Amino acid sequence: MPQTDYDIVIIGAGPAGLTAGIYAARARMNVLLLEKAAPGGQIIITDWVENYPGFPEGISGYDLGEKMLIQAKNLGLEISTEEVTAMELSPGVKTLHLGEKTLTTKSLIIASGASPKKLNVGEEKFMGKGVSFCATCDAPFFRDKTVVAVGGGDTAVQEAIFLTKFVNKVYLIHRRDELRATKILQERAFSNDKIEFVWDSVVTGMDGFFGVENVHVKNVKTDETKTIKADGCFVWIGTVPNTDFLTNSLELDEWGFIKADKHMETSVPGVFAVGDVRDTPLRQIATAVGDAAIAAVSAEHFIENLA
Amino acid sequence: MPQTDYDIVIIGAGPAGLTAGIYAARARMNVLLLEKAAPGGQIIITDWVENYPGFPEGISGYDLGEKMLIQAKNLGLEISTEEVTAMELSPGVKTLHLGEKTLTTKSLIIASGASPKKLNVGEEKFMGKGVSFCATCDAPFFRDKTVVAVGGGDTAVQEAIFLTKFVNKVYLIHRRDELRATKILQERAFSNDKIEFVWDSVVTGMDGFFGVENVHVKNVKTDETKTIKADGCFVWIGTVPNTDFLTNSLELDEWGFIKADKHMETSVPGVFAVGDVRDTPLRQIATAVGDAAIAAVSAEHFIENLA
Repeated sequence: MPQTDYDIVIIGAGPAGLTAGIYAARARMNVLLLEKAAPGGQIIITDWVENYPGFPEGISGYDLGEKMLIQAKNLGLEISTEEVTAMELSPGVKTLHLGEKTLTTKSLIIASGASPKKLNVGEEKFMGKGVSFCATCDAPFFRDKTVVAVGGGDTAVQEAIFLTKFVNKVYLIHRRDELRATKILQERAFSNDKIEFVWDSVVTGMDGFFGVENVHVKNVKTDETKTIKADGCFVWIGTVPNTDFLTNSLELDEWGFIKADKHMETSVPGVFAVGDVRDTPLRQIATAVGDAAIAAVSAEHFIENLA
Repeated sequence: MPQTDYDIVIIGAGPAGLTAGIYAARARMNVLLLEKAAPGGQIIITDWVENYPGFPEGISGYDLGEKMLIQAKNLGLEISTEEVTAMELSPGVKTLHLGEKTLTTKSLIIASGASPKKLNVGEEKFMGKGVSFCATCDAPFFRDKTVVAVGGGDTAVQEAIFLTKFVNKVYLIHRRDELRATKILQERAFSNDKIEFVWDSVVTGMDGFFGVENVHVKNVKTDETKTIKADGCFVWIGTVPNTDFLTNSLELDEWGFIKADKHMETSVPGVFAVGDVRDTPLRQIATAVGDAAIAAVSAEHFIENLA
């Protein structure tokens, strides 16, 4: 068996990474979890979670992330705040570069998650000046203001509803003529009189002096353009996988998510992908924890079978 | 679209079935959950759960099952205590027989779980008279007694450790010379001086007047037999899928578990299998809830796409 610093290294401390850590630590593996920022992943910016089983009244994303973190630590998981910048993956030893530092491991569980997709219409210069990807984080800054929100899926509709606790008015811009969001969220949005729907439309740009003042919108069916006076623009149009540290070594799907089999193993033996970064049919906390339990046990078996 | 009593029927109220119910009810589907006995599934006979993410100190299986049940009811899930006795499955309408009664549904999520495997050495006549498949249920009846336990996996070792809170002595019979259980459980069992390991051995029978008095054991390597004086015999040698109501209509794996793809869809369109009854690489609460979230969303999509 090769000599390595760790048996299992986990990248990412969202629900997937923490669950892999809970399982691996409980199995008394020599395991390290690396997280470049704060533990919790995307759920810590999720206002309220009511579909993770076990919490009858729902729970805030922040509290759920913290509970998982404490649970992992209680079971002895070693967590380090470091960023993986590059890696070399082989069926035997996996080498991870953390800036100047290097470490080796027999198996690797990638749980690095996904990030919000950008509009790419010049919104970068308004980041923190009206443009946001997180209502939970930024809604209080827009109290009694008018904002635009973009998207039609669960996240967009859920966050738009949350926004209405603070703002006077939300224009919800969606490029189609119906929402993709689950019905209960649609019903809540349709019955919320602070939300006005702008169908078949996309955001083409924005302007303003100190921050966002106008958001420009085009109807994709009629090509008609209009300008909405708004103090903010919230963007929820999808996610892209967090895989900057990957160097073409793993098989990806057409959107860049990491392909994995039913044991969560990627195209490189001993490398596993779980949660939002995987080519999964559904990105939920429930599916992330399921993926991760499987990957941790698969990693254990992989290591036991190493020559 | 066909006219049916329900959009989705779920069979089984363990973590998988309740999670499917949480998702389907939250999506405002016309959904019914059928459970033949008490809700909770196998977890309600699980003493303590410390690897389901979100509960830092662990939680009793009973409490976790109850929380999931209340959550599903809070979201409006209809639950009925009825047993499915047979079914006819077609890509369109699925017909379920509940004794005399019949109901129809567009999609079906099978979450009927799995049951403990029997020894088949005549233990049936000692059921409730010394033979048990559940330490949590029956251990208190064996206070200060001597018992035999059979198995070498997680469940066997975990339950044997739990038994030692009550009994004076546990002989743990395992047909191999090492345990399959996760290392932390092995360590706990090896350091527990109430547990004596009987390696490479199987139970060949048992006898007694009012209940179990002697358990007969054979060493599979030496063929040597011996009799252990014991007041009970706990059996944890694996699980078999609960699929009595199936009439050869779904593709199964070699052990009888229902085959499903990554969307949890079985060989019949609109029929999904989740949790312990599925041909999954791992049977855990975490994986059951992940399966179920996927199946519920897949069922929604299936129904939306029905002609």
